[in-house]
Amino acid sequence: MKNIVVVGLGEMGASLAKILNRQSENLVVGVDINDNSLTYAKKNNIVKQVSLELKQVAKEADIIILATPVTYIESSIRQLATLPLKKDVVITDTGSTKRDIMAVVEQVLTPKNVRFVGGHAMAGTHQSGIMQANEALYQDVPYFLIPSSISKTSDIQDVLKPINADFMSISIKKHDELMSVISDVPHILAFSLMNTATNQLGDVSNFGHFVAGGFKDTTRIAESDPKLWADVLLSNKEAILSSQSILMQQLKLFSQAIENNDSVNLMSLISSAQKSRKNLLR
Amino acid sequence: MKNIVVVGLGEMGASLAKILNRQSENLVVGVDINDNSLTYAKKNNIVKQVSLELKQVAKEADIIILATPVTYIESSIRQLATLPLKKDVVITDTGSTKRDIMAVVEQVLTPKNVRFVGGHAMAGTHQSGIMQANEALYQDVPYFLIPSSISKTSDIQDVLKPINADFMSISIKKHDELMSVISDVPHILAFSLMNTATNQLGDVSNFGHFVAGGFKDTTRIAESDPKLWADVLLSNKEAILSSQSILMQQLKLFSQAIENNDSVNLMSLISSAQKSRKNLLR
Repeated sequence: MKNIVVVGLGEMGASLAKILNRQSENLVVGVDINDNSLTYAKKNNIVKQVSLELKQVAKEADIIILATPVTYIESSIRQLATLPLKKDVVITDTGSTKRDIMAVVEQVLTPKNVRFVGGHAMAGTHQSGIMQANEALYQDVPYFLIPSSISKTSDIQDVLKPINADFMSISIKKHDELMSVISDVPHILAFSLMNTATNQLGDVSNFGHFVAGGFKDTTRIAESDPKLWADVLLSNKEAILSSQSILMQQLKLFSQAIENNDSVNLMSLISSAQKSRKNLLR
Repeated sequence: MKNIVVVGLGEMGASLAKILNRQSENLVVGVDINDNSLTYAKKNNIVKQVSLELKQVAKEADIIILATPVTYIESSIRQLATLPLKKDVVITDTGSTKRDIMAVVEQVLTPKNVRFVGGHAMAGTHQSGIMQANEALYQDVPYFLIPSSISKTSDIQDVLKPINADFMSISIKKHDELMSVISDVPHILAFSLMNTATNQLGDVSNFGHFVAGGFKDTTRIAESDPKLWADVLLSNKEAILSSQSILMQQLKLFSQAIENNDSVNLMSLISSAQKSRKNLLR
């Protein structure tokens, strides 16, 4: 019997817990600061046992999955470094940025008999909370595994196999660069565009009726959770600031071409974008 | 019998022509520089008659609808100013920006016995061409009508009634400001984000597999036609440059909050965006 502790029963954690809890060889224990979530999780067979505190269940765990927002993942790692744990316990997380988390791991966990593999699935909706628990959430989704100096990725990959994700190893730096471009900066753009629209046009009741599919699509992810995204953006600072500055240069190229009535240059900027976008879904 | 000339049988023009051509009181004449489009249009009952040149059919027209890209709309208006036309012919266009077009109208058409009402429907996909002709394209879609000094909007609204759009009058300035924020700048963002991604991460084969729904949605309109969008962006220059600079300020607020680890400010920026976006679909 594998004792699996899942910390944080939001959409990501609860979905993982629910799938792992179906496997007869697992005993899944849910940890959350929200009592209602724990009651819901037990009642709906998302977990077998529950606890309000990690420290009460950590010592029995074979696997610990940290599925809270990024800042809480870091404090949980620090807390685990001070707790009695099973020899060779495997710890992993689901944080969407890896640099800060892996730095804490190397700083506080290295001397102990634990293993840690960073994890990040390209799954999740803009919804949040345990009510979104969904056993198909990880199906065929890219799931990055980030080795640390105290781990090999295969240990955690075997445990997570039932979620049917598309697992792959990646370095911290490559992961965070990739995320800044394909996820963080797109969110900042969506937020900024919504704020620009309300600044320029007033409340959405003034312009919401006129927006077409393009505006709706471009701003869809602006509905994401503020606390979660403030955490994500702050935890991937260096990569984001660098990608943002490249984006600003691109925007300036457009402004300049428009300013100069330079339709040749403008068409070439648009054509490259169009070509890449067309290849994206091939 | 109303003689209706539709110039430009792309998605917008062909869809309009097809609906109007169903009305027994209309004789719809299609004009396009593409011979294949004319053959297709006649064969598929999109129009009754065809011509490669506006000047050959303009003098019989009661209504002339200019549905080409913006720059051709302007040259067609200049051409119409030199042609013999029916007294009280009503001319309209479907250009997505209005300032330059209405300026040409006021400059060349004012002295003549014609009426001109600017038009712009918030319809259209990122597809283009006559094969996209679609009788439901305008259904319940906001359709702006822009009066000029030689027009009242009701004349053209009566003719266009069968397309079942949601017609409304708007001033040139308000229209172009609105478009810059809800359509032009979102396109520039989508183009710029695609170009940033390929600059940072290489060809899409390197990162296309990892992108989630957020990136796909945010960049969907980057697939738009380069020629068409270069035209649109250049024809709404002033409003776009002003909206772009407000957007850049918003992006800088995000960069600064991230740089300063200012999570309070970051959450407040995200919360305003989230709130507006949630209200958008209400």
